[in-house]
Amino acid sequence: MLHLERIPRSVELVRAGDGSVRLRYIDERLLPDNLVVLETGDWLQVVDAIKTLAVRGAPAIGAAGAAAVALWAANDGASQANSHGCAEAPGVFSAELRDISQHVAEARPTAVNLEWGVRRVVRVAEEALSQSGISLSEVADALFDEVKRIEQEDEAANRAMGAHGAALLPEGARVLTHCNAGSLATVFYGTALGVVYAAAEQGKIKRVYADETRPVGQGARLTAWELSQAGVPVTLICDNMAASLMARGEVDAVVVGADRIAANGDAANKIGTYGVAVLAKHHDIPFYVAAPASTFDPQLETGAQIPIEQRSAEEVSRLIPGVDIWNPAFDVTPANLITGIITEKGVFAPEKACAAVLSR
Amino acid sequence: MLHLERIPRSVELVRAGDGSVRLRYIDERLLPDNLVVLETGDWLQVVDAIKTLAVRGAPAIGAAGAAAVALWAANDGASQANSHGCAEAPGVFSAELRDISQHVAEARPTAVNLEWGVRRVVRVAEEALSQSGISLSEVADALFDEVKRIEQEDEAANRAMGAHGAALLPEGARVLTHCNAGSLATVFYGTALGVVYAAAEQGKIKRVYADETRPVGQGARLTAWELSQAGVPVTLICDNMAASLMARGEVDAVVVGADRIAANGDAANKIGTYGVAVLAKHHDIPFYVAAPASTFDPQLETGAQIPIEQRSAEEVSRLIPGVDIWNPAFDVTPANLITGIITEKGVFAPEKACAAVLSR
Repeated sequence: MLHLERIPRSVELVRAGDGSVRLRYIDERLLPDNLVVLETGDWLQVVDAIKTLAVRGAPAIGAAGAAAVALWAANDGASQANSHGCAEAPGVFSAELRDISQHVAEARPTAVNLEWGVRRVVRVAEEALSQSGISLSEVADALFDEVKRIEQEDEAANRAMGAHGAALLPEGARVLTHCNAGSLATVFYGTALGVVYAAAEQGKIKRVYADETRPVGQGARLTAWELSQAGVPVTLICDNMAASLMARGEVDAVVVGADRIAANGDAANKIGTYGVAVLAKHHDIPFYVAAPASTFDPQLETGAQIPIEQRSAEEVSRLIPGVDIWNPAFDVTPANLITGIITEKGVFAPEKACAAVLSR
Repeated sequence: MLHLERIPRSVELVRAGDGSVRLRYIDERLLPDNLVVLETGDWLQVVDAIKTLAVRGAPAIGAAGAAAVALWAANDGASQANSHGCAEAPGVFSAELRDISQHVAEARPTAVNLEWGVRRVVRVAEEALSQSGISLSEVADALFDEVKRIEQEDEAANRAMGAHGAALLPEGARVLTHCNAGSLATVFYGTALGVVYAAAEQGKIKRVYADETRPVGQGARLTAWELSQAGVPVTLICDNMAASLMARGEVDAVVVGADRIAANGDAANKIGTYGVAVLAKHHDIPFYVAAPASTFDPQLETGAQIPIEQRSAEEVSRLIPGVDIWNPAFDVTPANLITGIITEKGVFAPEKACAAVLSR
């Protein structure tokens, strides 16, 4: 039996008793040892949470990025701009909004969802500001409402992906996943693990194999934890064990998330995903990417144009004198290694997914 | 310039001032933080060192296993047997030798070199015992001499492998390796890294990429350390980054060691090797296995018969309630993914290597 109620929402914008706006978020760096839900009204703390991986996962940082802008508007932006007087306030607010939103959007470069989330609230702000007679606190309210819509849409998209994806899995499926594209990577429910949860509700999941996902350990710390909380059988493996598992015939499908999908279906995801896709191809195992519309970037023709974040060497190892360390946070899986992309609007061949998802 | 003198010998049997025999060995669990060379006269401590990975690497545990038996003979076996009186002593010694040598050979199951090393000294003991009038201390001396021969042959084989293997690498070679098949995995010089050192002496090595090799980190802790000591440019990567590196065209060849090679050329090596071989095939990169004759097991037709050691879950992760962990220490790379097997007797197609090496 599934126990999704044991997994708290990763990010949730709330209005406090004093009228201020606050973001509740799980500090995922502390999992699985400690489940700590923080609450902040400070948009810069949210940016820091995104940079330090306290909040991570493409859809989750999309929502958190939008929330950071909404926090600024509600708690700082409106009152600061108003102190300039009624005539100048909207202009001051608008200029600051541009700066703040750019700062938020640049917190991490690879997942396009962050830009997407920020752009959504900026557009709402600009539309609101264009209405005559609207107060800045009403603008801030509009941003709050937009973030709540993003949160609701995220969960709905995940559940739709789950339904579409579960239909692809056989009875008694043994699914391998890389990194964490679970509830902890989204607002709630998950993309790749959303597919697992939907299939588990249908009694189709025998076991999930979770790659530990070095160097940050999202698989070992987050996927293993959330699946065990939810009551889904899970086996943790080191990244380099996936090939053996496949050779033994113990993997029926690979399902992973994505951080950005180019127009041609090439998909950036956590470092190591590309290797898993090559292994899946070699072993004739279907390889699915599950991602919502917000992950598609129609402006990039191919995955070669996706910016790949390089993170610090210390994430990999304590430094050894004379030893260099390479630490790219993502890689790109070419469309020809992807069996299908699971979206909230259906499952598509990778080369057709971007156009299909964004046109509907 | 190469500085091999900065790397101490992994294992070295010595005769102490009091006439007792002792094994000097690096406790590799403490590297790269501390280089600690231990010395023991206790054969059971050597067995423990092999089990706990203080001494590891197929050729090194071959030499250490032989040394454990020689330690027993010199420090315990001969005197204990003699206490039974002249008539019974050889029989007691011989029976004990069988028990002790079996215990040593079973310390770890996958690397055939351990069995091979033990068998070599047992055969020498049996031959010596068959000579009339030989004393048990002379038998123990014969074992000491045999271990020293194993040590010398190991280094000579590694240098020969190095010469054969270096010829396969292009100028400015960027070599990827997995686990540690270096000086630290042998008595001295290394198998896969022996190839690197020989090529580096010819000025052909641009860089070595070392997979960190989870869960034990032989790449991160040992390969990175010994290459940096020797002055070879080295970049440490997580296991799951090798695919990206290959896709970027930054790997000219993969060279790894082996723990057991079946008659058909299938090769067991550290977990993750098989995945690297699949990736190398996908990217059209030559994949070489470097191993001495002692690594071949002509009694096994294929790699499917090689026993794979399963190690403890705690090696992978602290346990999380509800989460299973799978931790095989080795995998098998099928012959069809191996470009060539580099031995002390030359480089062979995998399916021909066993017969060729053992017939010469």
